[in-house]
Amino acid sequence: MNFEQDSTTQAFSQRIQSFMREHIEPFEAEYHQWNHVNEHGDWRQWSLHPKIAELKAKAREAGLWNLFLPDAELGQGLSTIQYAPLAEMMGHSLIAPEIFNCNAPDTGNMEVLYHFGSDAQKQHYLVPLLAGEARSVFCMTEPEVASSDATNMAATIVEQGDEVVIHGRKWWSTGLGHPDAQFAIVMGLSRPQADKHQRHSMVIVPLNTPGVKIQRMLPAFNSFDAPYGHGEVVFDNVRVAKSQVIGDLGMGFAIAQGRLGPGRIHHCMRALGAAERALSLMIQRAMARQAFGRPLIELGGNAERIAQHRMAIDQARLYTLSAADKIDRLGVRHAMSEISGIKVVVPNVLQQVVDDAIQMHGGAGMSNDVPLAALYTVARALRLADGPDEVHRAMVTRTELKRYRQGGGE
Amino acid sequence: MNFEQDSTTQAFSQRIQSFMREHIEPFEAEYHQWNHVNEHGDWRQWSLHPKIAELKAKAREAGLWNLFLPDAELGQGLSTIQYAPLAEMMGHSLIAPEIFNCNAPDTGNMEVLYHFGSDAQKQHYLVPLLAGEARSVFCMTEPEVASSDATNMAATIVEQGDEVVIHGRKWWSTGLGHPDAQFAIVMGLSRPQADKHQRHSMVIVPLNTPGVKIQRMLPAFNSFDAPYGHGEVVFDNVRVAKSQVIGDLGMGFAIAQGRLGPGRIHHCMRALGAAERALSLMIQRAMARQAFGRPLIELGGNAERIAQHRMAIDQARLYTLSAADKIDRLGVRHAMSEISGIKVVVPNVLQQVVDDAIQMHGGAGMSNDVPLAALYTVARALRLADGPDEVHRAMVTRTELKRYRQGGGE
Amino acid sequence: MNFEQDSTTQAFSQRIQSFMREHIEPFEAEYHQWNHVNEHGDWRQWSLHPKIAELKAKAREAGLWNLFLPDAELGQGLSTIQYAPLAEMMGHSLIAPEIFNCNAPDTGNMEVLYHFGSDAQKQHYLVPLLAGEARSVFCMTEPEVASSDATNMAATIVEQGDEVVIHGRKWWSTGLGHPDAQFAIVMGLSRPQADKHQRHSMVIVPLNTPGVKIQRMLPAFNSFDAPYGHGEVVFDNVRVAKSQVIGDLGMGFAIAQGRLGPGRIHHCMRALGAAERALSLMIQRAMARQAFGRPLIELGGNAERIAQHRMAIDQARLYTLSAADKIDRLGVRHAMSEISGIKVVVPNVLQQVVDDAIQMHGGAGMSNDVPLAALYTVARALRLADGPDEVHRAMVTRTELKRYRQGGGE
Amino acid sequence: MNFEQDSTTQAFSQRIQSFMREHIEPFEAEYHQWNHVNEHGDWRQWSLHPKIAELKAKAREAGLWNLFLPDAELGQGLSTIQYAPLAEMMGHSLIAPEIFNCNAPDTGNMEVLYHFGSDAQKQHYLVPLLAGEARSVFCMTEPEVASSDATNMAATIVEQGDEVVIHGRKWWSTGLGHPDAQFAIVMGLSRPQADKHQRHSMVIVPLNTPGVKIQRMLPAFNSFDAPYGHGEVVFDNVRVAKSQVIGDLGMGFAIAQGRLGPGRIHHCMRALGAAERALSLMIQRAMARQAFGRPLIELGGNAERIAQHRMAIDQARLYTLSAADKIDRLGVRHAMSEISGIKVVVPNVLQQVVDDAIQMHGGAGMSNDVPLAALYTVARALRLADGPDEVHRAMVTRTELKRYRQGGGE
Repeated sequence: MNFEQDSTTQAFSQRIQSFMREHIEPFEAEYHQWNHVNEHGDWRQWSLHPKIAELKAKAREAGLWNLFLPDAELGQGLSTIQYAPLAEMMGHSLIAPEIFNCNAPDTGNMEVLYHFGSDAQKQHYLVPLLAGEARSVFCMTEPEVASSDATNMAATIVEQGDEVVIHGRKWWSTGLGHPDAQFAIVMGLSRPQADKHQRHSMVIVPLNTPGVKIQRMLPAFNSFDAPYGHGEVVFDNVRVAKSQVIGDLGMGFAIAQGRLGPGRIHHCMRALGAAERALSLMIQRAMARQAFGRPLIELGGNAERIAQHRMAIDQARLYTLSAADKIDRLGVRHAMSEISGIKVVVPNVLQQVVDDAIQMHGGAGMSNDVPLAALYTVARALRLADGPDEVHRAMVTRTELKRYRQGGGE
Repeated sequence: MNFEQDSTTQAFSQRIQSFMREHIEPFEAEYHQWNHVNEHGDWRQWSLHPKIAELKAKAREAGLWNLFLPDAELGQGLSTIQYAPLAEMMGHSLIAPEIFNCNAPDTGNMEVLYHFGSDAQKQHYLVPLLAGEARSVFCMTEPEVASSDATNMAATIVEQGDEVVIHGRKWWSTGLGHPDAQFAIVMGLSRPQADKHQRHSMVIVPLNTPGVKIQRMLPAFNSFDAPYGHGEVVFDNVRVAKSQVIGDLGMGFAIAQGRLGPGRIHHCMRALGAAERALSLMIQRAMARQAFGRPLIELGGNAERIAQHRMAIDQARLYTLSAADKIDRLGVRHAMSEISGIKVVVPNVLQQVVDDAIQMHGGAGMSNDVPLAALYTVARALRLADGPDEVHRAMVTRTELKRYRQGGGE
Repeated sequence: MNFEQDSTTQAFSQRIQSFMREHIEPFEAEYHQWNHVNEHGDWRQWSLHPKIAELKAKAREAGLWNLFLPDAELGQGLSTIQYAPLAEMMGHSLIAPEIFNCNAPDTGNMEVLYHFGSDAQKQHYLVPLLAGEARSVFCMTEPEVASSDATNMAATIVEQGDEVVIHGRKWWSTGLGHPDAQFAIVMGLSRPQADKHQRHSMVIVPLNTPGVKIQRMLPAFNSFDAPYGHGEVVFDNVRVAKSQVIGDLGMGFAIAQGRLGPGRIHHCMRALGAAERALSLMIQRAMARQAFGRPLIELGGNAERIAQHRMAIDQARLYTLSAADKIDRLGVRHAMSEISGIKVVVPNVLQQVVDDAIQMHGGAGMSNDVPLAALYTVARALRLADGPDEVHRAMVTRTELKRYRQGGGE
Repeated sequence: MNFEQDSTTQAFSQRIQSFMREHIEPFEAEYHQWNHVNEHGDWRQWSLHPKIAELKAKAREAGLWNLFLPDAELGQGLSTIQYAPLAEMMGHSLIAPEIFNCNAPDTGNMEVLYHFGSDAQKQHYLVPLLAGEARSVFCMTEPEVASSDATNMAATIVEQGDEVVIHGRKWWSTGLGHPDAQFAIVMGLSRPQADKHQRHSMVIVPLNTPGVKIQRMLPAFNSFDAPYGHGEVVFDNVRVAKSQVIGDLGMGFAIAQGRLGPGRIHHCMRALGAAERALSLMIQRAMARQAFGRPLIELGGNAERIAQHRMAIDQARLYTLSAADKIDRLGVRHAMSEISGIKVVVPNVLQQVVDDAIQMHGGAGMSNDVPLAALYTVARALRLADGPDEVHRAMVTRTELKRYRQGGGE
């Protein structure tokens, strides 16, 4: 066992940190101010601050690009555990992931295309994503059913001649409002009679295909998360060529399973970066602000809460890294307990840290003068996105009990 | 001891419930839809849905008006504990309090004017508030200092001849964006050398007085709470006649103390109404939604959480009612522990219930399709407004220790 | 609504407090020291400190006797809510309840006999209990089955001619080791085919009946709770006359139901008295002990924890009193949610307070130099006795959902 | 980074596991039964089950001996992180640590003597400890002062000619009742005027030195932890040669600091082993026991609680291992946050797991029929021993704030 980052990670880490200090941090306030306009206007008019493209070009030039992809040529050849600390670092900023072309859901979609896409699909869809020229959407969650149970999914992807026909309604499709969003990977039911893990398919649907009707962007705690957006979209008799199906009909779950492991690590590490940022804001406020003749840090249980958060974050980080290590060494299937466990632990840690950081800031904490309200929304949403806490706790328990059911146990 | 509501309260309770079912509930969706426009536009353009005035008139006619005021003529002569269950009932809806002319901060301001105002002040300021024709603002919290320690307050109210001059910056002044807002009660420092509870004054400042500069409305978790708004306002060399001072210079704290008790009860009871609503939404969702072949209520710890919330709400309600009872029987000064205690307990209960209700709703819970995001914002803000949890916990402890310091104890 | 104790309760309250200060508190240390010998010896040799009988006589003379029994002649005619604050007061001491003849399980057994016993049963069994001359046992929990589900019960009470035959094994039968214990009320299965609430019976079994074999006393956290004891007992072909059956065969559940309400109140109020004592010890220690140049109360989150406990205790007390009020006004059947709710809330509050009080005392807290270890054991056991938390939470939820199932809800 | 145990650890791990399965587990019930007699008798009569010596000999022969000592000759040359998982494994049993000669406080005392002892001290005191022929005691905590603040320490160790004189009262001196206990390492104040970290000394005091007066063994939750015992002892004008001082007068704190790091790891890993055992018992009970027609695991929040504990234990283990790694790589001084952090986290995790495991067992959980009551006592005591939670949280915060005080921070 060895808990030290290797030299590759350390080197990237320093370069990312420098880049963020030099280029991203000074730009953040301006960006959020500028983006405020998007946030309150019609999503169809949302636009990107021009400097984003400029910074993306800089990051690409600097070789800080597609770091998430474990391919030496297309990415930087980093393993999951090598990339994880870099994802955390990006998570300190709400805009950094896009600038390094490491933002969800594009990362997950790129991985899907990389591992399962046909050559033509790679050419048409993966290449522009890798270049940061297009953005994509992943359509899974549905409004009418409890999507926490994926077998509930009602949207259909049905073969008709050399086409597939897509019917259904999806929501919380992240990135659907982005000006550069070009296509969605849609998951739906193809073979209702098959074994429950071979019923579903994934298909690539360009957003300008007839029948794709974006209904609205959904607010989360009143924020539309412009210019990304979380959309509700109807697929009304949408037809695409069968060649748009990823892998084959019925492979949806298998692909989703593969997509899930590393993506979960990325999400959680970014969330831990966010938690570190919130804790840092909390501490700075606690040291600077005075009440009753003393800095807040000396009052009541404030100092204790700093310790609780430090312990919680450090533990959650190690837990996430251990999951990454298991994925790298043993594969996703041997890391199911951890992959679900971190999905419960990390967002809850983040929510708790941000909640206390808000408390330390008083009213300012709920305003947009500090980024805590935005981080809180991220935290709260993460407890639902990609499966609610409850589903993941159930998975951890199921894995645990299996050892006993098989006659093992302690 | 007797935990049954008296017949007066029961009768009002039924009438309010009927009124809400008949007039307010059916109107809520339309109102929120309509108000959406306010929320995203310039606050100077905010307007009231015309039906609000109509419903207020109806409520007034029905004698469901100013119930909070313990005056038989101007209000309905209800004691704090008689009114408390009615406040809870109003709290089920985010708009009901205004319709019954029982909304903060007007209720608190009316009480201040009722108890401490001069005849002229009553005539000019109390009468229109009681009639629901004007709305008012209370300016206390400041951005530059930790307002949790009220002695930090930096705004000044200084005597000059027969005028007082007001200087300073306030924020989170609730209602400042309301189209009908006409005046603010401003608290500031008059006598820096006096005993710390005799330094401050309250003065009535019409919002159209020269030098009153509203800077912006503040979002809380991205919501501007239109058409009320929480404003930031500068008082720049604002001059009003000395007769605008409430009571006398130096009486600010004494007045604030008196304002605080019943207002705290109202806030907490409304919050409990909100908690009941959230719990009800949670249960209905848990019974209606299916996953893994069963309604959510039968999965994991969901049923347990219902019980935890029922127990927490019932206890918090009794605690709040006991504080009301103490205020009525013994006076605010003998209820300091409870008045602070409920301010900690109730908003935390509300936040927890709403958090779980959101979880049960999945993504919908964070959207505006259900009122949970709005209730969550209310809950989170209440943990800061009117003193953060930490300050009130400290007060409960201080009261507790006093018994031991005086040689008492168990 | 009115939260003030009535004059009857206040008067008793003062008399009990005086009695405890004068007679019980000064005796406690000696008693515990003396009883230490019992604790570590063979339970068959356990003996009572002679002063207990003396104090019981004094209490009886003083009219502070059988206060729990709502009968003006045999008790003091107090309602549940009138008695509740007196039970709390007795709960400050671990020996007071016995001295006032108000200790479990005798109180519950006396109530059963009072309400359901035949004249002969009253004469033989109730009279000596009321006189404090005998003690009794209640045998319900069984080692082999999850007794949290009472329908699991395996012991049998079978009619044979004019006798009933009792077979089975019971444990955690409180008081079984007491030198004065004379009989047990045993619950068992009589009619396996009947409706599940009419299957069980209660029968009075003198402990010297052939076939009653006490196996051992059970330690709880290493304490045998001498001279009461929690016993494991086998009923091996035990035969008693049919006239020993309480009510009739099959009435066991109905009787248990009636026994449960007021008993639950007594338990919870005593536990709240214990919580007040623990909090008081915690505060006194926190004020007296110094570390890092300051009293402990000024360090870290200690002051906050005092507030949390004050708020929790006050709420739990009101909750318990409201349950008592419902029992008195509406009957046990209308107070099911509260009766289960307090059974969850109060022991958990007590455990938490004592846990923190121990922490404040350092090592001393776990020793027997202060009564905290004893109180902790009481608290922990109470979370299991008379149904574990989980069963009572389920009951609260069930009651809550019923409103929705019947088309009600908010 | 690499989270896999190395081959050395894996090999030891398997051998220890086999040894425990073969020799220790089958013996446990007999041992506890036998030891029951010790527990309730006079501590001066405590005796060791003869099989303990036999098993120790076996373990020594098997080379599973002194694994904690990072010396290739005297121990097995394992680093802190290599030993850590072995300590966890031993922690599954309450008697295993002694059998492998890896039990506290001897391990800490051996480390002190190994690193700081003179040759003569090593010869006389270390050699018999390493051989498992003697046991030792560490006397630090005092009854009269808050020992959480070590500078409060009142016992004195004063130079007089070529002797030192020891005065003072210590308690919670673990192992003081053990039949083989031969000497104590006593910490006390030598130079009250020196810098606060150079005031104290450690001295070796044979227990048969005149003036060493053992007062009593202290119960923790009523358990005397026979045959180890936690003693209260008076040093009344105790004189030993100056050569008994470890290092030099005034070096007490420096030595304590060095003793602390690895010892903390050992404690925490053993506690995690205990937590795994409790979780295992909990799961087995939950799967085997039926109520309401289903196994307990399917009822209420039971399944969720399994997941919570799995996540908490896994995180706490990684946290402890990361602290071990820092100690090995960077030294104790660079691991202060983690060394304090694990001291808070692990005992709390253990307490929580055991508490829920008890709950799942019903009354049996509090009895001695299962080892949960014993584990609970260990957990609760660990939250106080070696510094209470509060002191360690304060250390974590202090370390955190240092980064900001030095102009660093995020």
